[in-house]
Amino acid sequence: MKLRDLPTPHLVLDRRKLDRNLTRMRERADALGVRLRPHGKTAKSAEVMTRALKDRRKAVTVSTLKEARLFADAGFRDIVHAVGITPNRLHEAAGLIAEGVDLALTTDSVAMARIIAETGRTLGVRYMVMIEVDVGEHRGGVTPEGEELLDIARALHENGVEVRGILAHAGHTYALSDAEDIARVAEVERVGAVRAAERIRAAGIPCPEVSVGSTPGALFARALDGVTEMRPGVYMFMDLFQAGVGCCEIDDIALSVLATVSNHRPAQGTAHIDAGALALSKDRSTHLQTRDCGFGLVTDTYGALFQGLVVEAVHQEHGRLAGIGGVPFEALPIGSRVRVLPNHVCMTAAMYERYAVVDGTELGDEQPIEAFWERVNGW
Amino acid sequence: MKLRDLPTPHLVLDRRKLDRNLTRMRERADALGVRLRPHGKTAKSAEVMTRALKDRRKAVTVSTLKEARLFADAGFRDIVHAVGITPNRLHEAAGLIAEGVDLALTTDSVAMARIIAETGRTLGVRYMVMIEVDVGEHRGGVTPEGEELLDIARALHENGVEVRGILAHAGHTYALSDAEDIARVAEVERVGAVRAAERIRAAGIPCPEVSVGSTPGALFARALDGVTEMRPGVYMFMDLFQAGVGCCEIDDIALSVLATVSNHRPAQGTAHIDAGALALSKDRSTHLQTRDCGFGLVTDTYGALFQGLVVEAVHQEHGRLAGIGGVPFEALPIGSRVRVLPNHVCMTAAMYERYAVVDGTELGDEQPIEAFWERVNGW
Repeated sequence: MKLRDLPTPHLVLDRRKLDRNLTRMRERADALGVRLRPHGKTAKSAEVMTRALKDRRKAVTVSTLKEARLFADAGFRDIVHAVGITPNRLHEAAGLIAEGVDLALTTDSVAMARIIAETGRTLGVRYMVMIEVDVGEHRGGVTPEGEELLDIARALHENGVEVRGILAHAGHTYALSDAEDIARVAEVERVGAVRAAERIRAAGIPCPEVSVGSTPGALFARALDGVTEMRPGVYMFMDLFQAGVGCCEIDDIALSVLATVSNHRPAQGTAHIDAGALALSKDRSTHLQTRDCGFGLVTDTYGALFQGLVVEAVHQEHGRLAGIGGVPFEALPIGSRVRVLPNHVCMTAAMYERYAVVDGTELGDEQPIEAFWERVNGW
Repeated sequence: MKLRDLPTPHLVLDRRKLDRNLTRMRERADALGVRLRPHGKTAKSAEVMTRALKDRRKAVTVSTLKEARLFADAGFRDIVHAVGITPNRLHEAAGLIAEGVDLALTTDSVAMARIIAETGRTLGVRYMVMIEVDVGEHRGGVTPEGEELLDIARALHENGVEVRGILAHAGHTYALSDAEDIARVAEVERVGAVRAAERIRAAGIPCPEVSVGSTPGALFARALDGVTEMRPGVYMFMDLFQAGVGCCEIDDIALSVLATVSNHRPAQGTAHIDAGALALSKDRSTHLQTRDCGFGLVTDTYGALFQGLVVEAVHQEHGRLAGIGGVPFEALPIGSRVRVLPNHVCMTAAMYERYAVVDGTELGDEQPIEAFWERVNGW
């Protein structure tokens, strides 16, 4: 099967760019002296995770227990679920732990810590928990200096729950685009996470792990003293938003949406493709960056950008192309294919069940599909 | 199984509100004297479509051929695929037609019309095609008065393809909120679609159907003389955006996302739920309306709104609640459930595989789940 045989819209994953991104992050983790615990929330694929870790310890991060199930079944038995757990998922988590999966949950709530402890007692399961600290993003987490941190640690430790460590995520690095600024935020994240762990240890409670996150932080942090692991995820595929932050070049983006041109509207200076709000997502996160990429930038099937061309509007199954220099209608006949680079790859990929993997050689429509890799979506 | 037993996030569909919305639109179609051909793009569910049509002709609209397959297998054999078709989907369409499905495709391109004709000849299939006209939205379509319309009709008709009719979609009604304005746009849509059909007929080419769309247009059109059918879809569930347009009351919204409170951040005046960008979508379409609903409004499990409370921010799996009067922490303990009303229900529902159906009685967490209805996603 070749690229030209794929029904559209379809995800296309460039294996060479993927491998380049994966290698770069392994080298970063080595340089920083921390474990790489890649976040599976972006790729949600066992094949991608296998390549991401290569010969390393099979330690992964997940955002859903469905991802945990996927990775556990694929042999990744050391898992951190990095989203505040809710009571109705504790049974499912217990099931994984009972199978021998080393699954750490996350919380930032004393009340939830008590529920975890109580459920663990009831089910006869010893839960492991990361305590989330807020280092400025306010996505979740307690302050590293507050009493709540110690209250949570005690509510867990004194009731048979293992405090595995501290979890931080400086997602506000996403709003930056300067290496110095990102390094500064990453340092605030490091200091906050390490400080929280030290306070818990000082209270006599073991707290072995200090886990930090985010692709920008992982790429621009100067040092991670006291940190044991990092959890980047988007770096695997990269996207236009990460390019805007300065984490990659546009040419590093490994995932694109293959789409087909369905009409030309020369009078309006537009053309349409069969990839719209569902196929691309409505994520507009580049709109505050220096380069606003609309709903995505457009390349030919070789991966070469059509300069100035963007997906300027989406409806559910329609994408409208427009460009500063107009739409190159002759290069884009009806029925021809384009590849749309995603603004925010986690959102774009989420609507698809699989990746069509190409080896990244320059064959355009004629490049062979090497494999289809399955994703796991939903909850 | 009861609501309290559902893992979160989960779609919850209120059957009474659904049925009320469905009845209302059947009555509208009767009053306007047109066939109701509901659009399956929102619900993507055979059970919902069965209720939508009740005892009517089993005529449906779809946005993907995957939906066409779903509905065809469920006995809905009269199908309009209302998105500009691309060459790589013609084989799949031919397969459905060969099974006896009365499947009409859509195009607005002379070049595509020629490809359809040529493929039909090659495969020995007689395709049926709706020609899309642009009545002002510029999503797709040719102008009703232009030469291209007749060129497409001839390219089809003279090459063995049946011109089934004219298809219009006045999606720009979505930007309005006044019944008079919507009625005016619906009238422009009607006039354009009828005029296009008359021009094709005057050229000696049969063009039996005149099909118009959109929930606002269907609800506010004064008359649809010359129109044969309408294709609303969102009306089944409704959403905050449609409420903002004036198509429904907030209490008519039949679909919500059940979510669980995972923390309280009193110092920041926020709480978090386990429904974020994937569970709710990042659609912000209410932000230009009179009432900006953030990423969704919040009700208790009985469906009663927490006044002033919105999902003010989302991350991939986190939703952050905040409100004008603050978060009612006492009413929302850790582990308690809320229902989030969606901004744009087509986008929100798209991430889920099924609906949990409740009968809408006022039992909160104790209401029984009557059924799970499957959705079909992707392409």
